[in-house]
Amino acid sequence: MIISTQELPGKLKEIIPINDKPSEKDIEEAEIIVGWPKQINKLLDKCKNLKVIQTFSAGVDDLDFKRIKEARVFSNAGAYSIPVAEHAWGLILGAAKGVNSKERLIAYQVCNKTLLVLGAGGIGIETARIGKNAFHTFNIGLSRSFKDKSVFDTVDSVESLHNYVEKADIIVDALPLNNSTKNILNYNLLRNVKNNCIIVNVGRGETVDEEDMFKLLSQRSDIRFATDVFWRKEDGKEDFLSSPLWSLKNFFGTFHTAGAYGNEEVMLRAMEIAIRNVQSFLRDGRASNEVRVADYL
Amino acid sequence: MIISTQELPGKLKEIIPINDKPSEKDIEEAEIIVGWPKQINKLLDKCKNLKVIQTFSAGVDDLDFKRIKEARVFSNAGAYSIPVAEHAWGLILGAAKGVNSKERLIAYQVCNKTLLVLGAGGIGIETARIGKNAFHTFNIGLSRSFKDKSVFDTVDSVESLHNYVEKADIIVDALPLNNSTKNILNYNLLRNVKNNCIIVNVGRGETVDEEDMFKLLSQRSDIRFATDVFWRKEDGKEDFLSSPLWSLKNFFGTFHTAGAYGNEEVMLRAMEIAIRNVQSFLRDGRASNEVRVADYL
Repeated sequence: MIISTQELPGKLKEIIPINDKPSEKDIEEAEIIVGWPKQINKLLDKCKNLKVIQTFSAGVDDLDFKRIKEARVFSNAGAYSIPVAEHAWGLILGAAKGVNSKERLIAYQVCNKTLLVLGAGGIGIETARIGKNAFHTFNIGLSRSFKDKSVFDTVDSVESLHNYVEKADIIVDALPLNNSTKNILNYNLLRNVKNNCIIVNVGRGETVDEEDMFKLLSQRSDIRFATDVFWRKEDGKEDFLSSPLWSLKNFFGTFHTAGAYGNEEVMLRAMEIAIRNVQSFLRDGRASNEVRVADYL
Repeated sequence: MIISTQELPGKLKEIIPINDKPSEKDIEEAEIIVGWPKQINKLLDKCKNLKVIQTFSAGVDDLDFKRIKEARVFSNAGAYSIPVAEHAWGLILGAAKGVNSKERLIAYQVCNKTLLVLGAGGIGIETARIGKNAFHTFNIGLSRSFKDKSVFDTVDSVESLHNYVEKADIIVDALPLNNSTKNILNYNLLRNVKNNCIIVNVGRGETVDEEDMFKLLSQRSDIRFATDVFWRKEDGKEDFLSSPLWSLKNFFGTFHTAGAYGNEEVMLRAMEIAIRNVQSFLRDGRASNEVRVADYL
């Protein structure tokens, strides 16, 4: 039995049969669960028979991995590539041009600049493609596993970040949050970036060290930092407005709206992609975006 | 003799000989003047022998045409195409994604949307090219004279604007300001635009009716308007912060920084393009961007 943590529109249930109003017994017997990580967490202890977890979200860092025993976990990486890459460019250009600064900031140009993309999954690849096609950027991609290298002029591993960070005019962080990426963007790494460097985060807030970023932006007024993702507080929620970064004129933000927030077109498309991944798993045992659980323990 | 209203770097004076520190007598005898419109205005009465005016600016609406007698006028249209088209996309995406709104606005998608470009000079063409290459937009171009139609899926005259405005998801105003374009974007024209329409102005403030836009944005919270250009007050200067539009959460702005403001790379490149146009005029009597003076009288 496949269960969902939330009621689904009929057209999604036509793809594969999904029980979206499971009883306690259905939850106990379910072999596959689809849903948002925080909702899945609530059911983990009740699921006695779970073999597969498929998230609607691209990031799985909110899943309570310690309580997942045997199940394989599949993320929805790539499902938000187009809206989030658009959003990354909204933040790059918003920062470059000083949109809604309410003071007169110099406009930086982006054409022919060097774009460093951290994470070359769907979002990273689409971000690089937009840069190349629209603005003739020179694209450097750093990733653990490349789905497609063709949009990058240079590729390397994320571990080599320190070799590239000072070559970039624009840095886009599209990394998942896991043990190896937490606070990866910190003061020591970024202190000598190029003049007028633009840094954008569409991954997870905690991949950037918030205090370090405040220090960096305070010292280097030429650098501009824009983020869609914020730092989670004790209650596990992002607090959008409490960041001290808002007091700096070289900081720009949106409130975690790059993905499905409020945009039904994006949401439905993402849920469909997740369910088609489960369909593929059922058909021939193969599905995309399997998570390395050890990265999150 | 060619005179300039401002001192030029040596490398620009190597293109053609220009007197950039003219005496009163030099001004009286000058046949060609290059410079910014407001500076040119100050010298117009003193120039007794003027045959050619070449502006560094793309727009010439600040020139005091009533006091220009025999001289031909050439604008610097196209010289800012790349930075201003980038800026147009900064405003489109800034508004679409709600950059620096300080509240949680839904992110609109731009891919596969219909882009209506008003004015198909260099800026309009480059704006359409970015849309097509980066976001697969369907491009409608309206212009009096097309330099290049290849980036547009549909082309027509500006007079046909009312036939297209309700088909567009994104409207970019890159029009010059003259008798036929003043307040061309007004309430009656725009009241029935599509849901979630994004309107951007990188032309001149006065091509948009400010009061009408306030009324429209107040009534239609789904529409987002972003502008780099503001309305000039009695002193002839744009007052960036006095616009009541700032009180609306569906308004986004930058302070006329799309072009050369503060960006030396952009400024030098634009002045060089203006001077090369004069060089071409001197060589064979042909130069680009001749202004129809009657449009401004």
